[in-house]
Amino acid sequence: MATDSPDEKWNTAETEIMQATYRALLAHGYADLSISRIADELDKSKAALYYHYDSKDDLLVAFLGFAVDRFETTISTETGADPNDDLEHVIEKLLPLRPDEEQRQLQEVMVGLRSQAMTNEAFREQFTRLDEQIVITTEEIIQRGIDDGVFRDVDPTRIAEHIQATINGTMYARATTNRENAAAATRVSLSSYIDSELRRNA
Amino acid sequence: MATDSPDEKWNTAETEIMQATYRALLAHGYADLSISRIADELDKSKAALYYHYDSKDDLLVAFLGFAVDRFETTISTETGADPNDDLEHVIEKLLPLRPDEEQRQLQEVMVGLRSQAMTNEAFREQFTRLDEQIVITTEEIIQRGIDDGVFRDVDPTRIAEHIQATINGTMYARATTNRENAAAATRVSLSSYIDSELRRNA
Repeated sequence: MATDSPDEKWNTAETEIMQATYRALLAHGYADLSISRIADELDKSKAALYYHYDSKDDLLVAFLGFAVDRFETTISTETGADPNDDLEHVIEKLLPLRPDEEQRQLQEVMVGLRSQAMTNEAFREQFTRLDEQIVITTEEIIQRGIDDGVFRDVDPTRIAEHIQATINGTMYARATTNRENAAAATRVSLSSYIDSELRRNA
Repeated sequence: MATDSPDEKWNTAETEIMQATYRALLAHGYADLSISRIADELDKSKAALYYHYDSKDDLLVAFLGFAVDRFETTISTETGADPNDDLEHVIEKLLPLRPDEEQRQLQEVMVGLRSQAMTNEAFREQFTRLDEQIVITTEEIIQRGIDDGVFRDVDPTRIAEHIQATINGTMYARATTNRENAAAATRVSLSSYIDSELRRNA
């Protein structure tokens, strides 16, 4: 739907603030983020930010909304061909096999933001929306694979929820333990899960 | 090993403090926990707690160590019969299908404590130890099942890491989103995963 595109939902000023927030989060982490640091990245005054958002939390909730919209747009652009490739692409996007520095920092930032969802209902709604969006995207790819006859006739919701939980758990462990090899093992086991649950003749 | 038993590692005073901490965490949640509230549960003065622990964080790190020891002892007592039942038992312990109020609160408390592991190395070490312990326990059960001929000849580490990631991700989503049905779906998919990966003639 055209009305759902980020271009229409987010005007230029807002988009610039969101991009500055992203850079500030990567540079300083969630714990050390401040309106000042976002303003520095934006090269504007704090007042310019407070014109758009009432508080840091208000801005971060908007940032999460922006991230979900962006994820939705990116995935819909980058998928649509082979369901096998599409599924692999979504998983690699969320849980890179060999994350580079930016991807690692982004995962830490997301875990930091998500910890706020325990006590802040506005954050919680955004993470509910994010998880929902990931599951819907995965379900659609699986359903397409079933319709095309490349996947077995499974329950797409069950498989999508399982993939989502495994990705979340791996990201979470990466940010909260020193078990570096565990993340790699899970990433491999996820491909193996998809092979045995979805692929015909596996 | 006898020297590893919680009884020898934790003296009576320490055990009472740990039990009071557990009750205080369930009653107030991680965010609102204080030394005063633990002291109230213990029916002693704050000074009595500071005699044993330098700070609230110091006490909570000890609490996590206590929880890991307790988990280890409980599981080794409650398992050892049929590998299928043992695996189901461990999963049900960590991720109850229908969590009661106390189990729900405990999960929230653990997610709250774990969020500290992002920035506090002592917390991180305890969660590394906890996850390691859960994976080792699961691996041992799977290996026993393979040796007994009830499970297929799989890589126990890969399956154990996958189960662990899925459990962590489900617990995490339960505490940070409003997707209530998602947790139930993942719990069911986990049983189905074990069926298809491990059980012969599945």
